Amino acid sequence: MITNTTIQESNQSILKSHQRNFNHLAENLESKGLDVNQIIQQIRNLKIAIPSWALGTGGTRFGRFPGGGEPGSLEEKIADVGLLRKLNPAADSISLHIPWDIPKDPKAVLQLLEREGLTIDSVNSNTFQDQPGQAHSYKFGSLCHSEEKVRKQAIEHNLHVVEYGKQLDAKTLTVWLADGSNFPGQQHFRNAFTNTLESLKEIYSGMPSDWTMLVEYKPYEPNFYSMVIPDWGTSHLLTQSLGTQAKVLVDLGHHLPNTNIEQIVARLLHVGSLGGFHFNGSMYGDDDLTTGSIKPYQLFLIFNELVDGSLDSSVLNPPVSYMIDASHNSKDPLEDLLQSLEAIQIAYTQALVLDRSKLKQAQENNEVSPCQTIIQDAFRTDVRSLVAEANRQAGGAIDPVGVFRMAQTREILIEKRGRLSQSTGL
Amino acid sequence: MITNTTIQESNQSILKSHQRNFNHLAENLESKGLDVNQIIQQIRNLKIAIPSWALGTGGTRFGRFPGGGEPGSLEEKIADVGLLRKLNPAADSISLHIPWDIPKDPKAVLQLLEREGLTIDSVNSNTFQDQPGQAHSYKFGSLCHSEEKVRKQAIEHNLHVVEYGKQLDAKTLTVWLADGSNFPGQQHFRNAFTNTLESLKEIYSGMPSDWTMLVEYKPYEPNFYSMVIPDWGTSHLLTQSLGTQAKVLVDLGHHLPNTNIEQIVARLLHVGSLGGFHFNGSMYGDDDLTTGSIKPYQLFLIFNELVDGSLDSSVLNPPVSYMIDASHNSKDPLEDLLQSLEAIQIAYTQALVLDRSKLKQAQENNEVSPCQTIIQDAFRTDVRSLVAEANRQAGGAIDPVGVFRMAQTREILIEKRGRLSQSTGL
Amino acid sequence: MITNTTIQESNQSILKSHQRNFNHLAENLESKGLDVNQIIQQIRNLKIAIPSWALGTGGTRFGRFPGGGEPGSLEEKIADVGLLRKLNPAADSISLHIPWDIPKDPKAVLQLLEREGLTIDSVNSNTFQDQPGQAHSYKFGSLCHSEEKVRKQAIEHNLHVVEYGKQLDAKTLTVWLADGSNFPGQQHFRNAFTNTLESLKEIYSGMPSDWTMLVEYKPYEPNFYSMVIPDWGTSHLLTQSLGTQAKVLVDLGHHLPNTNIEQIVARLLHVGSLGGFHFNGSMYGDDDLTTGSIKPYQLFLIFNELVDGSLDSSVLNPPVSYMIDASHNSKDPLEDLLQSLEAIQIAYTQALVLDRSKLKQAQENNEVSPCQTIIQDAFRTDVRSLVAEANRQAGGAIDPVGVFRMAQTREILIEKRGRLSQSTGL
Amino acid sequence: MITNTTIQESNQSILKSHQRNFNHLAENLESKGLDVNQIIQQIRNLKIAIPSWALGTGGTRFGRFPGGGEPGSLEEKIADVGLLRKLNPAADSISLHIPWDIPKDPKAVLQLLEREGLTIDSVNSNTFQDQPGQAHSYKFGSLCHSEEKVRKQAIEHNLHVVEYGKQLDAKTLTVWLADGSNFPGQQHFRNAFTNTLESLKEIYSGMPSDWTMLVEYKPYEPNFYSMVIPDWGTSHLLTQSLGTQAKVLVDLGHHLPNTNIEQIVARLLHVGSLGGFHFNGSMYGDDDLTTGSIKPYQLFLIFNELVDGSLDSSVLNPPVSYMIDASHNSKDPLEDLLQSLEAIQIAYTQALVLDRSKLKQAQENNEVSPCQTIIQDAFRTDVRSLVAEANRQAGGAIDPVGVFRMAQTREILIEKRGRLSQSTGL
Repeated sequence: MITNTTIQESNQSILKSHQRNFNHLAENLESKGLDVNQIIQQIRNLKIAIPSWALGTGGTRFGRFPGGGEPGSLEEKIADVGLLRKLNPAADSISLHIPWDIPKDPKAVLQLLEREGLTIDSVNSNTFQDQPGQAHSYKFGSLCHSEEKVRKQAIEHNLHVVEYGKQLDAKTLTVWLADGSNFPGQQHFRNAFTNTLESLKEIYSGMPSDWTMLVEYKPYEPNFYSMVIPDWGTSHLLTQSLGTQAKVLVDLGHHLPNTNIEQIVARLLHVGSLGGFHFNGSMYGDDDLTTGSIKPYQLFLIFNELVDGSLDSSVLNPPVSYMIDASHNSKDPLEDLLQSLEAIQIAYTQALVLDRSKLKQAQENNEVSPCQTIIQDAFRTDVRSLVAEANRQAGGAIDPVGVFRMAQTREILIEKRGRLSQSTGL
Repeated sequence: MITNTTIQESNQSILKSHQRNFNHLAENLESKGLDVNQIIQQIRNLKIAIPSWALGTGGTRFGRFPGGGEPGSLEEKIADVGLLRKLNPAADSISLHIPWDIPKDPKAVLQLLEREGLTIDSVNSNTFQDQPGQAHSYKFGSLCHSEEKVRKQAIEHNLHVVEYGKQLDAKTLTVWLADGSNFPGQQHFRNAFTNTLESLKEIYSGMPSDWTMLVEYKPYEPNFYSMVIPDWGTSHLLTQSLGTQAKVLVDLGHHLPNTNIEQIVARLLHVGSLGGFHFNGSMYGDDDLTTGSIKPYQLFLIFNELVDGSLDSSVLNPPVSYMIDASHNSKDPLEDLLQSLEAIQIAYTQALVLDRSKLKQAQENNEVSPCQTIIQDAFRTDVRSLVAEANRQAGGAIDPVGVFRMAQTREILIEKRGRLSQSTGL
Repeated sequence: MITNTTIQESNQSILKSHQRNFNHLAENLESKGLDVNQIIQQIRNLKIAIPSWALGTGGTRFGRFPGGGEPGSLEEKIADVGLLRKLNPAADSISLHIPWDIPKDPKAVLQLLEREGLTIDSVNSNTFQDQPGQAHSYKFGSLCHSEEKVRKQAIEHNLHVVEYGKQLDAKTLTVWLADGSNFPGQQHFRNAFTNTLESLKEIYSGMPSDWTMLVEYKPYEPNFYSMVIPDWGTSHLLTQSLGTQAKVLVDLGHHLPNTNIEQIVARLLHVGSLGGFHFNGSMYGDDDLTTGSIKPYQLFLIFNELVDGSLDSSVLNPPVSYMIDASHNSKDPLEDLLQSLEAIQIAYTQALVLDRSKLKQAQENNEVSPCQTIIQDAFRTDVRSLVAEANRQAGGAIDPVGVFRMAQTREILIEKRGRLSQSTGL
Repeated sequence: MITNTTIQESNQSILKSHQRNFNHLAENLESKGLDVNQIIQQIRNLKIAIPSWALGTGGTRFGRFPGGGEPGSLEEKIADVGLLRKLNPAADSISLHIPWDIPKDPKAVLQLLEREGLTIDSVNSNTFQDQPGQAHSYKFGSLCHSEEKVRKQAIEHNLHVVEYGKQLDAKTLTVWLADGSNFPGQQHFRNAFTNTLESLKEIYSGMPSDWTMLVEYKPYEPNFYSMVIPDWGTSHLLTQSLGTQAKVLVDLGHHLPNTNIEQIVARLLHVGSLGGFHFNGSMYGDDDLTTGSIKPYQLFLIFNELVDGSLDSSVLNPPVSYMIDASHNSKDPLEDLLQSLEAIQIAYTQALVLDRSKLKQAQENNEVSPCQTIIQDAFRTDVRSLVAEANRQAGGAIDPVGVFRMAQTREILIEKRGRLSQSTGL
């Protein structure tokens, strides 16, 4: 398997060409007054959680084409993320999904995590599927259900998830609700909203005071007429009612066609309500593709808002948590995650090299062409060598996917775990 | 021109067939336990404002094909709405647009309105166009503008609009902002929002205490990258900050593709934030077609929420105001408005004849097929004779468009006002 | 279980009210010059195939909530469709899916079909999933695959499907391809198209001369960047190249947001390329909801085109085949199908009662308001009693879902087949 | 005004930094086996037409905010394009719009063009507006109209446009039809299509044998229910029926939400039906923004298909013509065009530096992650210095917008032509 030596050797083999590009870029940036070392430090500080359920091959309702070597246990999942972290140090934590990832021996898991340099970022509840032996079905909803006993069961599940999270030092509960309806008239909108809010209040009050609850929104799927929390406005209404520990989670694939997502990000930051992200790529809906594979400019514009907000002392939003949430239907999941990690780092770095004071001035003066020139100058700058340098300095690979492939990682995993091993997840 | 006699004669000529249908329907509804007379009264109580700017031929950026006989003055506009009211008594008020409809002699206008049985429903400000002689341009925004002097000018315009409204006994100021940007980077999202909120606060504080301010949202057009108020969530944030006199206005054409508008309506009602509607038909965007011409089922589902909310004592939303806002590009504007009026009345009536207690029970029990059967039973009921009867009892026409055409109304208007008369408006 | 006696008794119990409505409607229609008996005959002639895979509970990638009593064998599926046919005689045939429905004893199946008054409408191939023991995977496509051996396997599968179909007297092969790509650059567009066309040619040439091949299109899902056959234009290009036995299949859920589907139907009819339909309801994408549950007006407008084309001797399109294709995630599958059948019959009947000569004249004269009045008059007419009468005369139920529920059909099926029986399908 | 000296001086002042970047990039590209001089030649060979109607401020139906100094005559328009060509030599021709650009003295115009190094690329007919004195209105369509006399008028207009074009050595007639309908039932789809085809046939047969007719498609606007030519499939049907001189024109803003435009481009190339482009940027619909301002990756993917097709000897498509078609609502029109020109050149260059043989191999082997890495490597390469070098070598500016602003070009134009001069156009 990949060791630090593998990585160093690979880095060494391409170092000259890497440094040529990095030095050229660094000189350009320094000549614009930017502090390249500081940018490298900022890139190194960006941490992105890996979801445990994205380590295996994903699928659609039409089928699933497993690739082999998937992690079959929590321990193997931790090993896979440990591998990712070796290659790209930004991947320093894991998001767990309960009941898929219930730890049998929390202490051993914590030790394993420490050994791999990882932490548990957040725990995710699952009330969109029925589990074997479950008393009541979520067919018609969970926290929104018209019957109290179903809501109660879903609330208790969430509280259990918090308990598991506490055992693993997590500090975040992410709630995504599939609740909604497939047909006009099926669900009473106001009742469903009220039930959801009341249920969330019970979960919220059962959460430790240093935890955050992230409330996700999604306009459709798996319900195709209405979702109880379809948009950021509804998530914000709920989190406002819950309290300051509740924040909105933005999943890039959870929007209607043509939505200006970066503006939503700016708005949530503005009102101190932005809690975190699920990153992925999207062409049509919740396509769960590799982050940055479809709309790289949009990804940059989102980071532009995040960086801009972070520099503005009037923005009181707490730190935002980042996670990848994708479904790896046709790529090797680990390669896919490495590509997503790099795309996020690139977008962030492009936002960091933007000449923000020049942009502000052009905005104030409504000089529209210059505004575009300035913002696209940042996006068109090839910052890949800067990202690679930051990762290299942190012990990672200049070319993570290259190392992964060269080391025949997947082949080794298949040999170890089998061709038909299947990870829990969608 | 059309007189009450014209209408009575027309009604008489089709009365028998009308009564046949009405009696059949009434018997059906009574057998289901509905009080037909009460429904008729409810239909008669539904009042819909006519926008002064929709009395002429509309156009697109590609052209405009005038039809002739358009009203050239406020007085002629009042005459046109008076005509509509004769044919369909639901049309009892007018929405004015300033500066297009500045009254020269407010008292005379009030007398004219009284004579026609009309009132002024609301006044609308216009900061999306530059007026001749205006000191500062709205090219880069109005209430959101980066420069204080432009914001000040736009605030003062709105306060003038309130003054004109007071002279005509209006009680509502509708604010639609075209403010936004065409390119990523052009506008600073948080600054634009803050400027808009501060500007609205000044206007709000200049409004009489019995007035309502309606804040409209729109995702795009005339700006094609971002709008300062793109969605209901933003409108709601603003109105919350302004105070209880500020409410959200929903224009049916101002949503992204596939938006579930009826759910937004339910949500705004729920939080007491729904102020009013701009009705029109839409296939792609702000198409401004005849209400009910494209998605009649959606229109019914919206009224289903409105009726449901009105029957629920826990809903504290004040009465909602209704207005048509369409662009009559290919139909005779008055015929178009008559068709819109009827479509709204039909949708409302369908919502009234819905077996709501049966639906609630099916919803509580999650009986999904029956939910659909019940709600579609209301929609599929042919309530046209019930609407016609309500209008007839209020002095209107059983077949408004029929009378309009038979009386050669447009031909007479063309003769009076000329073929090339052009109404102010878009 | 439901027998003809059950149905007759139910009909009898609501006959009086049914006849009251039917007589009222019939009188209205006759007074407009329509021949009600002829319309009844036309309704009775409309036949709609039931897909074998829609008899069980459907699901999404997020989960599936089975309802129990699902048919576990081809024989049980035939029994279920037989039941549907008893209740609504329009359901006179079945669409099979291979390999899910491979007949073990074709003769016995044919006898069973005859006993139930059913036929096999079409056979559907499946190259969007890998079957156990399959030599090559369809992970990266089937008929479009870059490797010849995979294409060959997929071609042979289709030819096998034709063989199975021949044994059961089917006359149609429906080809839906999930082929496509998830990422820009993954697939070479022209090669994928060429491979697909060449593969289809081989299948086409292996089809009996009295068979039809239906080529479906879909813009996305399960591939989320590109599909090899994304739109009607591509389907038409392919069928043109194949020959007159190949036609385009329109699935109502397979379009981008805001598509004018009825215009596509008119266009395909016009060029003689329309082969058939997959009916379902859609709000966002391939939602596979009950037909008519979301956009009943659109469904009517589609039938308006079909009826219009059928009356025009210049339209040379062969008869079009109709099938329901939905995923019953939250309703009882049989209730859902009964609601879809009725919705289709209603839309067709509304198209039949439209005053077509009056509409043509208004169209010729560009009288836009009357055009809308005429077309909406047909849509707003409550034709449910006419549909019910046609079904009643054909031996079916006036209230199919009512009979189904009253007879506790699902409960009986669960008792017979078990609560956990699972139908093959998605 | 800007002279070659101005440009040379500006180039000189930034030459050192330009060469630093160019040399670094060139070395990188050469090390990958690319011939940089050949790429420069290819960039220099890319020619893009400027539409005469885009030289003034554009507007929406809500308003227009003129910027001043707009060209008021054909001669001034030629001067403006001449200026663009000086700055960016890719802009070597003009698209004219009749009747807005009827030449009074064709010979003088030809001389003027020659002096500026320009040609006339294409002529565009206009049947979407009524002209003063026109006998019949296009309110209800032109080539599709139900009345023969209107169609005849529109045909004759197109034939006149060809005549004007012949006088100016144009070789292309571009036909964009606004024809369609706003309401279901308004237009008979098949008749409208047949009328359009028959009308186009008459125009086609009146075109010289060395001319090309480009048939544009658009899904909506200015008609909001249906357009006669809504999609590429319909354009292709029409051009197929017309003959080999008729081709499809793709306007980037003329697609439904989420359309994969690059796939349409590949398809049309494949069947030899692609005639040309109207470039612009789009977020929601026909937004007519600066090319590359919203979806730069999409623009690159389109050029990727064009380059790929041009290298494939099996693709028999004739050369494709390129034009910008945007509406400059908030930017200076000339700055906007310069930004569009550069964005097109960048996208083309990115497509040229793509390692195509490596990509083909990865595609053949279905190695999905590498496919993405390869294609994004081309996109992420900062090729701006390569584009600048190509333009510099052709006599243009390294920083065209910079020179334009530094030379105070707009201020000079305003002084010359006035602040209120208004260009013909939308």
